[in-house]
Formats: sequence, structure tokens, C-alpha cells
Amino acid sequence: MSLNSQNSTETENQKNANVQWGGRFAGGPSEIMQAINASIGFDKVMWKQDIAGSLAHAAMLAHVGIISKDDEATIRKGLAEIGQEIAAGNFPFSEALEDIHMNIEARLSDRIGEAGKRLHTARSRNDQVATDFRLWVRDAIDGLDQQIAALMRSLARRAEEHAATPMPGFTHLQTAQPVTFGHHLMAYVEMLARDRGRLADTRKRLNECPLGSAALAGTSFPIDRKMTAELLHFDRPTANSLDSVSDRDFALEYLSALSIMAMHLSRMAEEIVIWCSSPFSFIRLSDAFTTGSSIMPQKRNPDAAELVRAKTGRITGSLVSLLTVMKGLPLAYAKDMQEDKEPVFEATDAAALSLAACDGMVRDMTANTTQMRALAGSGYSTATDIADWLVRVLKVPFRTAHHVTGRLVAKAEEKGVGLADLTLQDMQAEEPGITDDIYSVLSVDASIASRTSEGGTAPGNVSAQAQRWLKTLGAEPTTAGQ
Amino acid sequence: MSLNSQNSTETENQKNANVQWGGRFAGGPSEIMQAINASIGFDKVMWKQDIAGSLAHAAMLAHVGIISKDDEATIRKGLAEIGQEIAAGNFPFSEALEDIHMNIEARLSDRIGEAGKRLHTARSRNDQVATDFRLWVRDAIDGLDQQIAALMRSLARRAEEHAATPMPGFTHLQTAQPVTFGHHLMAYVEMLARDRGRLADTRKRLNECPLGSAALAGTSFPIDRKMTAELLHFDRPTANSLDSVSDRDFALEYLSALSIMAMHLSRMAEEIVIWCSSPFSFIRLSDAFTTGSSIMPQKRNPDAAELVRAKTGRITGSLVSLLTVMKGLPLAYAKDMQEDKEPVFEATDAAALSLAACDGMVRDMTANTTQMRALAGSGYSTATDIADWLVRVLKVPFRTAHHVTGRLVAKAEEKGVGLADLTLQDMQAEEPGITDDIYSVLSVDASIASRTSEGGTAPGNVSAQAQRWLKTLGAEPTTAGQ
Amino acid sequence: MSLNSQNSTETENQKNANVQWGGRFAGGPSEIMQAINASIGFDKVMWKQDIAGSLAHAAMLAHVGIISKDDEATIRKGLAEIGQEIAAGNFPFSEALEDIHMNIEARLSDRIGEAGKRLHTARSRNDQVATDFRLWVRDAIDGLDQQIAALMRSLARRAEEHAATPMPGFTHLQTAQPVTFGHHLMAYVEMLARDRGRLADTRKRLNECPLGSAALAGTSFPIDRKMTAELLHFDRPTANSLDSVSDRDFALEYLSALSIMAMHLSRMAEEIVIWCSSPFSFIRLSDAFTTGSSIMPQKRNPDAAELVRAKTGRITGSLVSLLTVMKGLPLAYAKDMQEDKEPVFEATDAAALSLAACDGMVRDMTANTTQMRALAGSGYSTATDIADWLVRVLKVPFRTAHHVTGRLVAKAEEKGVGLADLTLQDMQAEEPGITDDIYSVLSVDASIASRTSEGGTAPGNVSAQAQRWLKTLGAEPTTAGQ
Amino acid sequence: MSLNSQNSTETENQKNANVQWGGRFAGGPSEIMQAINASIGFDKVMWKQDIAGSLAHAAMLAHVGIISKDDEATIRKGLAEIGQEIAAGNFPFSEALEDIHMNIEARLSDRIGEAGKRLHTARSRNDQVATDFRLWVRDAIDGLDQQIAALMRSLARRAEEHAATPMPGFTHLQTAQPVTFGHHLMAYVEMLARDRGRLADTRKRLNECPLGSAALAGTSFPIDRKMTAELLHFDRPTANSLDSVSDRDFALEYLSALSIMAMHLSRMAEEIVIWCSSPFSFIRLSDAFTTGSSIMPQKRNPDAAELVRAKTGRITGSLVSLLTVMKGLPLAYAKDMQEDKEPVFEATDAAALSLAACDGMVRDMTANTTQMRALAGSGYSTATDIADWLVRVLKVPFRTAHHVTGRLVAKAEEKGVGLADLTLQDMQAEEPGITDDIYSVLSVDASIASRTSEGGTAPGNVSAQAQRWLKTLGAEPTTAGQ
Repeated sequence: MSLNSQNSTETENQKNANVQWGGRFAGGPSEIMQAINASIGFDKVMWKQDIAGSLAHAAMLAHVGIISKDDEATIRKGLAEIGQEIAAGNFPFSEALEDIHMNIEARLSDRIGEAGKRLHTARSRNDQVATDFRLWVRDAIDGLDQQIAALMRSLARRAEEHAATPMPGFTHLQTAQPVTFGHHLMAYVEMLARDRGRLADTRKRLNECPLGSAALAGTSFPIDRKMTAELLHFDRPTANSLDSVSDRDFALEYLSALSIMAMHLSRMAEEIVIWCSSPFSFIRLSDAFTTGSSIMPQKRNPDAAELVRAKTGRITGSLVSLLTVMKGLPLAYAKDMQEDKEPVFEATDAAALSLAACDGMVRDMTANTTQMRALAGSGYSTATDIADWLVRVLKVPFRTAHHVTGRLVAKAEEKGVGLADLTLQDMQAEEPGITDDIYSVLSVDASIASRTSEGGTAPGNVSAQAQRWLKTLGAEPTTAGQ
Repeated sequence: MSLNSQNSTETENQKNANVQWGGRFAGGPSEIMQAINASIGFDKVMWKQDIAGSLAHAAMLAHVGIISKDDEATIRKGLAEIGQEIAAGNFPFSEALEDIHMNIEARLSDRIGEAGKRLHTARSRNDQVATDFRLWVRDAIDGLDQQIAALMRSLARRAEEHAATPMPGFTHLQTAQPVTFGHHLMAYVEMLARDRGRLADTRKRLNECPLGSAALAGTSFPIDRKMTAELLHFDRPTANSLDSVSDRDFALEYLSALSIMAMHLSRMAEEIVIWCSSPFSFIRLSDAFTTGSSIMPQKRNPDAAELVRAKTGRITGSLVSLLTVMKGLPLAYAKDMQEDKEPVFEATDAAALSLAACDGMVRDMTANTTQMRALAGSGYSTATDIADWLVRVLKVPFRTAHHVTGRLVAKAEEKGVGLADLTLQDMQAEEPGITDDIYSVLSVDASIASRTSEGGTAPGNVSAQAQRWLKTLGAEPTTAGQ
Repeated sequence: MSLNSQNSTETENQKNANVQWGGRFAGGPSEIMQAINASIGFDKVMWKQDIAGSLAHAAMLAHVGIISKDDEATIRKGLAEIGQEIAAGNFPFSEALEDIHMNIEARLSDRIGEAGKRLHTARSRNDQVATDFRLWVRDAIDGLDQQIAALMRSLARRAEEHAATPMPGFTHLQTAQPVTFGHHLMAYVEMLARDRGRLADTRKRLNECPLGSAALAGTSFPIDRKMTAELLHFDRPTANSLDSVSDRDFALEYLSALSIMAMHLSRMAEEIVIWCSSPFSFIRLSDAFTTGSSIMPQKRNPDAAELVRAKTGRITGSLVSLLTVMKGLPLAYAKDMQEDKEPVFEATDAAALSLAACDGMVRDMTANTTQMRALAGSGYSTATDIADWLVRVLKVPFRTAHHVTGRLVAKAEEKGVGLADLTLQDMQAEEPGITDDIYSVLSVDASIASRTSEGGTAPGNVSAQAQRWLKTLGAEPTTAGQ
Repeated sequence: MSLNSQNSTETENQKNANVQWGGRFAGGPSEIMQAINASIGFDKVMWKQDIAGSLAHAAMLAHVGIISKDDEATIRKGLAEIGQEIAAGNFPFSEALEDIHMNIEARLSDRIGEAGKRLHTARSRNDQVATDFRLWVRDAIDGLDQQIAALMRSLARRAEEHAATPMPGFTHLQTAQPVTFGHHLMAYVEMLARDRGRLADTRKRLNECPLGSAALAGTSFPIDRKMTAELLHFDRPTANSLDSVSDRDFALEYLSALSIMAMHLSRMAEEIVIWCSSPFSFIRLSDAFTTGSSIMPQKRNPDAAELVRAKTGRITGSLVSLLTVMKGLPLAYAKDMQEDKEPVFEATDAAALSLAACDGMVRDMTANTTQMRALAGSGYSTATDIADWLVRVLKVPFRTAHHVTGRLVAKAEEKGVGLADLTLQDMQAEEPGITDDIYSVLSVDASIASRTSEGGTAPGNVSAQAQRWLKTLGAEPTTAGQ
């Protein structure tokens, strides 16, 4: 039984598939080559960077006398008009011209003639693309840096609010010791601070200008590479022309930093998913960041968190892609390096979306403090406090104190009660030196309050940490409209 | 010195970046959520599969009496019209409707009313998307399978042509023994045959129909899963509803098979790049698959080969992406799994392009047989033939024969001559039993001709192997036009 | 303040580091080369395969008359003694002899003289290592296959036991619909069955014998490759000598299959970790597979599950390692390919450990059926059953039925009651046609029992599925002693 | 036909496999758990770091009065003796004690009794292992940093030597323009300088001390975290106790830096392999870093370079492993994180070996300057110089100059001569303004000498660049003996 005539379907399927795929190349070799070779489909997002690079190059050429001031003025005017065309969506992109660089240069020559043909003096597509791509990555870093800062601020604000809210601290997803919700949120602030640091280091290291390296060997024209570097806000020119056109470290280091950041966000997202699950019910996400179903309107699927968790796959995959592309490439430029851009563009998009979604979720979520407090005190979570009391007050060696405490926990479990419900006799049966004073360390609040060591979970610590970060992060604008 | 006013630029840069990225979400949480959540931007390529799945589902619902025959006819007509709309580029895709499934279903209800609202009975988006995606991957496999076969045919044809053309056989990229160019090309036919085998196994294993698993638990409607499976040319329904909506093995296995295939193509591409390099000059690619420059018209950059080599990065990265996405996901469906499609779509595109480019290059390339023959005989490449002669004729133990040969090679090198130029006295000084007969094994052609062991490089072997494959591959159509 | 004299420490640190790392190579180039080049440290695990390969090769050489029967007997005896030496731990492994192949051959010549020097006739290290490695991977597949089968049996047994035990079925880790614990466990049986299928396909595809391909070009000796293939239980000889010594597909396909399997186990492990967490408390692992602490003896850290979840990293990393190694390698053999073994050995070890640990956990775990049943009925988990009733009994279109149900759920939530606690008036206010009969579908047991579609969660289905698998898996021995 | 009785072998094979793998766990669950859980097999390499951490912790405990000065002295003495035991190879490592931390602590208690049991006060294995591992990575960075510096020095020395040696500069492995061999080598110095920078940034960011974070929440003991941080040469304590025990960024950032470095070394290795191939013959490696064969003593397989190229697989795989392990882990410590060490240890080993091998190869290699010079001038490699002359002297627009040059190259190719062999009439036929002066730019040496732009290939540039680096790198000791 079949929707179509039964016996021919497999063949038809295959024929369809053939048309679907092979049909793209019906025009033969030239169409295959154009399809695999052209990058304009994705590299046109670098149009601003390409124009900026050409403006700087033209200004320098005029400054050192390689082109005339008039030519430079004409070029500047032409490029400005092209920028307007592209911004307005009117630019006639051509796949035959392969990439954004040739598209813009060809358009410039069409518009301004001779002067346009002088622009490429002492420059090659190899150093041009290296420059544009660095500029693009630098811009992306600046944008992500602000998004990370915004997320840190949101976390620190919620942490300040919950500096004294108890929640169970987990190891192995088993209740271990009480901590505060604020303390937990501040852990992510620390992670994100390192992420910013990595991006800042990447930015600093990439901030050298390859322009003027020409095809691979430098040039015989009397160019001023310091000037173009300065005009494009690079710290200095790159030092070796062969390296300059062969180097994609900046993209790899950027993708590495994003991969580690994505891993952090995946941990936060995993926690959000678990915290939203009904047995936990630690938090409630806002409607904006959940999806329900028409049939179960009370169901709140944490789709945003799940997608953030999944995006780490895309970002790590991008890093692996580019590491694989670059493996074993001889110097200098090879066309393989054209495969550097899509991974970077896609990972950037995934990272920006993930940060925005995390920021939104953190701002909007509601904490179920009753549930968190209840679970914080379950599971003999203050056992360590007993052991510490034994060491501190009775001077029992630590390992011995641990064993005594273990026996007390076992006794409480056997009797089906909490540690605070053991009688003093129960306690003294295990360690005669125990006094009434021990009950003072058995509550969740007492446990939390006692952890005053630097970086510990005591509310005062957490609050100070949150405030210090908020001060550091200052009045920078937020990303998601509020 | 700056293109704009000097001191404000860093801030402006950052502001621009902020606008560029953060500005996308100026509308606040709902825009962030839509941006991260919607998949219609990429999953619309599955429209044919979605319609096919709905047609089969409706036919089954009518067959078992869950909907009426009239409703089914109405649905069938409605879906056919939607298919035409999409094919014609007139379908109003909506990002608010998230994905291709909701876009089509909503459009259907708009068009045909009540009957459209009955289509989703005993079905959920979870089993629907699992079905559509399997259908898409199955189609992709069928398409790639034909492309691989086409490339194998091209290789076998060139191999038959060059079954007796000597070239240096390399180990460590050092000349080792003469082989034939045809034999070398046939090595890739074997690799590609395994690639086809892996895809065929993947196809067979994926060819079970998840439709009817509903959200996760199956359904209470008296559906006939065998019927929908059959209508969609699946071998059978899947066996466990929880697994059915949680499973993406078929995508991972597909990406694994593509990663191994891409690795094979990267090896071929690397060889093409090296063979085209002027010191090697083994082959010349056609104009169609190279790029030159206006300034060096004789230069032939093997861009197509370099891009094929690089695409292996994209494909491997896709596999890593999806493995990372799926790691540690609890059952059943999680939104993370929406991140399964882009890696699969992109890897498929990269693979199809790479196969087409390789096929084109192989068909069009010209072999420089003079250069290959000259190098095949250099570097004492027939030393092994001497050793084998000593074992065969003089019954010298193999390890001993090797040492004797080593001394002969050293002597030839010292005298600056080839092995065939050593005198019989030179030879007998190392091994008195050597006779004139030894000179018969020292030529490139003699060496190649002697390797008649199964799978060896002897021209007769190679030719037979090529013909056997061409017969197996039959008269299937070629992908690239002509 | 410092443990040592303050001002010299940084330098001392660095000096120590220098000694630690650089010191290894104090002997200069030859020590560096030996350290990077020798593989005996890891490839000695292939000693059985190497001896088996040599026995087959010698038998064939004697059969076709390349060596004498006496020589073969001597070789056979010598190899047997070497096998005993290695098994007994008395073999003098030498790093100077680089690898297991040279270690054994050198030892053989020491022991039996001339005959030993004839063994390597018509063979090269290139085809020898390819053969040994295939044999090793084939053995590993056979071992893992049995471990997977054992885990499937354990899962099916527990599934049969819990074929009717309700638990919440999750999507997005949110309660969606009730399912049975047995049904959930059977989902993993399906995944593992696919894993076995992939390994079986890998085994079938790898089961061709490269021996006789010699260095790369085949050989002029009249060898019988079919005979060696048969003796080593290969299906046939490989077809192209260049491919044979360059091919590591079998290792990559094996690592791909393990990566997908590890992903499955990581999902099971994640679920175990979550199920063991106190808010869930679905299961309790045995003492054997948890660790506690002396201080919290009631705490049961699911260490084994966490380690299984983590091992997926090691296995995926191994796949990426080898894909990276093979990318862009020219034919034929290159020394890069020596880096194929450690990833395969380590991934095999991680996979075998993970399977054993999962099998142990599944056998020993105790289900908390009370908790699972309670949660299965929470969260309006039978809402879908109402909708299906409306469609089935009242013939309401599916999408409409969904909306009606949504309003009923909202009403119940508002009143703070379950769906079964809504009065008939409450129901009829939303849909006048509703009758008393609707209450029959609102219980967890009724919901589960109704999902009788093929692959659905109805207890009868689950039980039949489990029994079918147990029959298929038969009386194969278990891996972990019981 | 079979080596054993024919019909039973498949079964025997499988039985053997079963014994091989499953047999390891014949003792049942406890053996499985020990095998998967114990880390002493690999983490014992951190013994120095563990002892250092404990010494600092004990000193701090005594300083703030948590333990007595006598106890501290006893602990110090005990740990010193244990250090000697381990260094001497006499320490009785126990797998039952799981890891290096418990092995040393248990041994300490055995040796010194009560005082040993006090050492773990205000500390947990979670912060202890985080501290030890940071110390180990820091030491590894210091060691690798020196190895990188050594390789940079070797490259710079060879570059100085070959600052004026022409070689063909390639793009797409096609001859593009002449460069100098020194310039090419200096490109790697720049890459390695960035690698050092990345490691230095990693070191700086990791240099915070987690000790005192205790299990996850901090401690109630009045510890002085600044003191332990200082004693261990950390810059400061970490800021958040939950983050401190959950963080493995330092390992990931380290592996990222190594992956990028390994990619650089893979490029150098690829070039060495190609340069050693007989058609190129640019360099000759020393005997120490090549392997030959007894039969072809003149063959020089660049095994060391191939292994370096392959090691990038192992290092990238390690990064992927740990990224996968960390994905989606809830805070705080999870046992998954025990899988952090092997990837780091193995990648470090691979990196150290690769650097040592590259350093050795670079020092020892001999350049074939005749061959490089000959190829540098082939392929119309000075075409760009003509175009630049036309722009500079005749003020022809760049794009026009390119087209004129293209016609000259075509003419030379047609006549089968070099550019310098075209007559002035030939030249003037294409561009009447051309004068005799153009011949001054057509030689390889003229071309190279003219590339004086910053970072260009002119010998003076290269020599200055090499000297500047040698000065910067100073008189640091070399790694490989001599």
C-alpha cells in the first residue's frame, strides 16, 4: 500500500534526491566551482570592516604620496556612498565577484573609475581579508563583553537580594551543606569575570594590524604601516608578513574563550532546568522564557535554558571545525582559510543569543525560598558543623571528629529524626565531652552564618562580594530593554 | 591621528558593537525568546518531508476511522496547495509560528478549517519532527550515495586509463616503490565504497518510523503504525515511544559517516594540492577548478581542492556539535534537540559540494606522465626488487637479503649512479651468487609488472579492478552535467 | 613569607619545571627521538594479535613453498614460546626495538636463528601493523558486544519487573504524562540494540585482511592472501594494497560507534544522578556503586554514574583525536598513523568500564515506587487523556479539544485541585457534552493502561517487549559476577 | 582450513574476548567500582604538589592556632619523609585508597599518628585537589614556556643564518613571490610568541588559591587564606568557595593554548615533511630525527615531523574531552571532574615531546640553498615586481598595471622564457612607457631586497627581526642537551 504506485517508489525517491542535490550542479563544473568558491553569501557581514580598512589604506597611500589627495577624496566619497547603499539594502551583491572585498572594489571602480583602480596598490586580498576579519572579531568581542557585563550585573543584583536566602549546597547533586542562593549566583559571576578576562586578552593579542603585508612578502612601496594601524585603532603593525596572512590564532583563541564561556552557561542552564523541575521547584521562570502548551497551561517548559545548554554544542563544534581546518596547512595563505568565517560568525551568534537569554532568565526568575530553605536543612546537612564544633571546642583531631559525627548521623537516621532532635544523652553516648553548646551550630542559619572564611557562604561575605562587583561593573548600559 | 575625532573612538567602537549585538534585542525578553526559540529559519528545508508525513498520517487516520474520508480528502487537497505555494516561493513563513510544522498546520487550518484541526489527532510535534528529520536524512543519504557512486566511476575510468602509468609510491612522502597512477586512484575507490557502505547501514538502521509515538507515551487512539510506516517507505515502526522521540542516533551516525568520508576527500585534496605544486607537477587541473590571478595567468591555484580539504573541518565540527548537544540529556524530548538540524544541514551541504568538486577535478585533470615516470625510478625505488630476487633466486633469508641490498644501494649512492648502473662485479662483491638475471628486475616497469599479488599494483590487476568496479557501478547517471 | 627563602622561589620553581620536563631529554636528540618514536609502551597489548598474524603468515609461506615446512615448524615453536614468555611477564621488552612487531621478530631470530629471518618475507611492517590492529579491534568489538548484551538483559529484567510501575514521563524535565518505569528502562534497550548493530556493521566492514599488501605495492612472491585471510578468520583479503596500509576507517568507525554508545550511557547516568538526588528520590543505588563519607554515612554519592557520564568526554575526544590525525594525510603509510592506537585503547577501556558500571547499577538499584507513583499523578499529567476523550467520544476536533482541556486545567489549578476533583458542572461549563464517563480516564493507571499503540507505555506492551528481548538475548553469560 | 579446529574458532574468539574484558570484573561490583573510581593510577604524578599544598596548609593552621607548632613540625617531618619515599620509588601506593591525596594522608597518619589526623582540619578533598591540580598545571606551563623559548631561539638563530637565503614563497603551495628562508622561519617565531603569551595569560588567571574553600561552602575555622596563597606563590585566594571547587577553567584554557600551539607545530611539521620530499628537497634532516630502512639506507623518513603533526590530534582530542566532561555539570563538585586529569597529563606530554622534537629538527637540519634559490626564481615569481614598477615609475593604476603584467607573463610563457629574457620591444609592445630600468627588478635578489616594508622579507628586515628576538629571549638554557 502506498501513496503512489507501489513498486516504483524507491526509485522515485532516489530520483528526487538526485534532482535535489545533483541538480544544483546541472550547469557543470563552473557552477560547482562557483558554489564551493564564493564566500559573498556569508562574508558580506564584514562590509563595514572592509570599508573602514579601505579608508585607512587610502588615507595612508595619500599621506605617503603613493596616490594623490584628490584620488583619496574620491575614494572616500565613493566608499561612503557604497556604505549607504549596503546599509539601505540596495547594493547589488554578485556571486561571480566571489567575496565582499571584490564586490566593493568592483563597485568602487564602476562609480569612480581610475582612482578606484589605484586603491589596491601595496595591498593584496590576503592582508585585506586578514585585517577585515580581525576588525570583525574585535567588534564582536566588544559586543559580547558588554553582554557578559550585563549578565554579571543581573546575577550580582539577584545575589544581593538573596545574600541570606538558604538553599541546599550540592556535591554529586546530593545535599552536602547549606549555602545561600546569593552565594551560588555569585559563583557564576566569577566564571563570567574569567570569560571577560579571556576575551580581553584575546582582544589585546589580536590588536595588531596585518595590512601592508601584501600577498605574503611585504611590498616595495614606501607604505606607513604604523599609520594604518593607528587609524584602525590597532596597537601596532604585525611583525612578519608571512605570518600575517597565514595566521588565524585570533579566531581560534576567540572560539576557545567562547567555548569555555558556553560551558559555563550550559552549567547555569542545566541548573535552571533542574531547579524548574517539579521535584526541585527552586525557581519559577517568567512566561517570557518558557513555553507552555495549549493543553497544559500550567506547564512551563524551560525552553530558553535548554537551548542555551545546547548552544554549547554549536560553539564547541565551531572551535573543532577551525582547529581541523588549520591543522597542517603550509604557509602562507591557503584557500582552506576561507573556511574560518562561518564557524566564527555562527559561534558569535550562538553566544550573543545565549547571553541575552541567560540575562533575561536571571532577571525575571522568582525564587521559591520556602522550598529552598526546607531542603537546605534536610539530609543532615549540618553534620560538618558538629565535626567542626568537636575540633574547635573539644580539640578532637579532625579525622576522629568526623567518625564521631558519622555515628551521630547514623543514630539520628536510625531514630528517624534530625540532628537537632538527638538528646544530649544520645550525643554524649558517642562523645562524653559534648555539651549543650553544640545545639547552637545545628540550624541552617547558624551553619551559613559561621562560614565566614574568605569566599565562604556567610551572608555578610556574599553581600559584600555582590556589592563589590556591582561597583566594579558600574553604570554600564544593559542589553535587554527593560 | 584618526579618521574621526581621536579621543572618542574607542567608546564609539564599543557603542557600535553594542548596537550591533545588543540592539537586536531592544524589544526585550520576547524578542530574545523568539530569536533563540524559532527554528523556521532553518527547518523550512524540511517542508516536503513534513507534508509527506502529514499525508501518510491523514491517510491512516481515515483508514482506521479516526477521521472521515472526506476530511482526509480535504486535508490532502489543502496540503497539495500548500506544497505548491512553498515550491513557488509564495508561502508566508511566520517566525511567530516557530517552525515548519506549525507554519504548515496553521496554514492548513486557515485554508480548510475544521478538518485541518483534526490532522494532529494521535500525533505530537515530538514524533512529527522525529519523522520529518528521518525522512530528510534518508533523502540526503540517497542523494550523497549517488554522488559518491559518480565519483567512484570517474576515479575508476581514470584508473583504467592509467592502469600502467608509473608513478612513485610514497611512504612518509618519500619515494618507496613504483606503483601505477591507476592503482593510486583505485585506493580512493575502495575508501568511497566503504563510505557508501556506512551510509547504507545508517539508512537501514534509521528506516523505522517514529510516527505514532505521540508526545512520549504512545496514544490511546487505535492507530495503525504499520500503515504510516509503509506509506512513508519505512521498514517498520519504532519499538519504544520514549526512545522514538528522544533518539537522534540516525543523525549522529550519518554525521560520523560523513566525517570519515570527508577525511578521505581531505586526503585526496591534499594529494591534489601537492601534485599541482610545481616541484611535483604530477597533474594539471582544468581551468574550471583552479583560480589564477590577473598578474600571473600561468599560476593555477587549486582552490577547489583546498576548499574540499577544509570542509572536513566543518563536517567534523558538526559531529562534535551534535555529540555535545546530546550528552547527558534526560529522556524524553528536550528542547536541546532542536539544535540537531543545523549541523546536519550544513554538513550535508559541505559533503555534497565536496563530492561534486572532487568528481569534477578527477574528470578534468591531466596527468603529467613523463614527470611521474621519471620520479618513479629515482631514489633507488627498485631496491626491494633486488632483495626479493636474492630471496627468490638465491634463497637468502629475507633479513639478510635486505642487508645485502642496503649495501648495494649505499654503493650506488656513493658512485652517484642508479642500481642498474652498478656492474656485475660491484654486485658480486657484496653477494657472490648474483647473476646477470638480476638486471631484469631493476626497471620501473619490471618492478610494477611483478607485483601481481592480489591487490598489488601490477597493471593487469589494476585494470581488472577498475573494470570490475565500473561494472558494479553500472550505468547510473552522473551528477555533474555532461 | 615563604616556605623557603623568599626571593629565589619563582626562579626555583621554574628551574624545577625545567628539570622536570626538559630533563627528560638531557641525553640529546637520540633520547628525544626514542621518546617520540617508540610505541612499545602502548602497542604491546597487541602481542597476541601479532603472534597470530605471524603464525598465519608462516603457515601460508610454507604452504606455497616460499619457506620450508621445517622452517615453519621452527617458527611456530619459537612464537609459542615467546607467547608464553609474554603471558608470564618474562619477556624483555626493548624500547630501542620500537614496537611490539620488532620486539617479537628480534626475539624470534635470537631464539631460532635463520628461520626467524625468513618470516618477514613478502610482508612489511605496514601490512603487519594494519593486520594486528584490525584483529585487536575485532576482539574488542566481540568483548564489548557481550557487555552490551549483558546490560540489555539486566535492563530488560528490571523492565519486566517494573512493567506496570508508574513514573512521571518527562519532557523538558517537566512532568508530561505518566509512563511506566519499565517502559523507560526499555528505551535504553533500544538504544543499546542500535549500538550493537553499529558495532556489528563495523566488525563486518573491517573483516578483510590487509596482510600481503606488503609495504604499499603488493609483492612479487606467489603468496596466497586468501589463505592467510581464512586462517585469521577474515572474510577475504583487502582489494587494494595502497589503501590497505593507509586505511584506518575501521578504527574511526569503531570510535564513532563507541561515541554514540557513550552518549547513551551518559543519558542513563544523568538520569541516575537526578533520580538519586533527594528531591527526586526515584531510586537508591547499592552501596557498591556509591561512595559516602565518614561524616555523612547516609549520603550516597552516585560516583559510578558520574564517572560513566564523564567517560563520554574521553571517548568523544578519542574520536576527534583520530579524525584530526588522519585529516589530509597523503597515501600511503605515514608515521602519523602510529597515533591511532592510544585513542582506540583508551576509548575501549572507558567503554568497557562504563558498561560494567551501568550493568552493576541497573542490577542493584532499588526503585522507590511510592515516590514515582505520587509524582506520576501530579502536574495534571492526565490532561492529554481528557483531550483524547473529547476527540474520541464527542468527536471534537483535536485542536479544539486541546483548548477545552487547557481551560479545565486552568480551572483546576485556580481551585487548587486535581483534574479528578473537578465537578461535572465544572467540566460541563467548558464543554456541555462531557459526561461522567470522563472520570474513567483521569487516573494514572487508566492513562497508562490506555496507551496501547505499538511501542506505547501500556504495561502489557512493556512486558511483551521485555520478554521478546530477553528471548532474543538468550542465555548468554553475564559479565559482572553475580 | 584453520590453525585450530575449524568449527569452534569463532566461539573461542568470542570467549577469549569475554575473558579479556569481562574477566577483569570477575570479582563483581566492588572490583568494577574500584576500577572506575580509583585515580591513583594517574594522579600520583601530583605527589609533589600535594605535599607542597599540605605543608602550606599545616603552616597556616599552626600560625592561626588551629593546630600546635609541635603538630606542624611533626607533619612537616612526616611529609618530608613521604616525599623521599616516593622519590625513591618505595612508597606503597594503594588503589583502595583511591587517590594520591588519601594515599599520602593515610601514610602520614600511619607514620605520625594523632598529628596526621589534624592536618585535614578546615580542608576538604575538593579544595585540596583543585589546589594540587592548579599547582601542577602551573609547573607544566613553566616547563613548556622554557621549551617554547628554546625553540624560538633555535628558529631565530637559523633565521639569522638564512636571512638572505632565497626560497619560493608559496600561496596555495604554488610559487608566488620569492622570500627568504629566514623570513619563513621567523613566521614561526611570531606564532610561538603568541603561544607563550597565551600560556602566560593562562598562568596569571589560574594563579589564585582555592585552598580554604573546603567542601564547597567555606569553613567556620579562622583560617588565613592569604597566607596559604602566598606560601604557594599564588597571587591571592579565590573569591567564591562554590566556584573554587567547581572550576576547571584553568585546565581548559591551558588545553586551548596547547591546541593552538600544536596546530602551529603541525604546520611546521607538514612543511618539513614536504620540504624533505625528493621533488622539493629544500632541507635534509639529521640522522637523529629520521628513520631509514636497512634496505634503502639513503631514504630518510621524517618520522619525528610526522609524529609532531599527528600529536595535534591527541591534544585537540584532550580539549574536546574536557569540554565534554564539563558541559552541563551542576555546581558544586561532581565526580565527573575526576576525568580532568588524564587529558591534561597526556596533552602536556605530547606538547613537551613535540617541542623537543621540533627544536631538535630545526637545530640539525641542513638547507639545500641551491635548490631553494632555483625554485624561488621559477614560475614568473617576480611578476608582481613588474606591476609595482609600472605603478611606481609610470604611475599606471594598480589594476591596470596588473593586467599589463599578466600579458607580459603570458608572452614569456608562450615563448618559453623567463621574464628577464623578454626583449625591451616585447615589453614595450604591451606598454610603450617601459624602459630598460625594469630589468633591475626582475631578479630574485632584487625582488627580495625591495620588500623593505615593515615585516617584509628584505634580508635587512629579517636579520634585524631575528636579532631582536634573540636579544629578547636572552641567555636562557636550552632544553635538548648540547
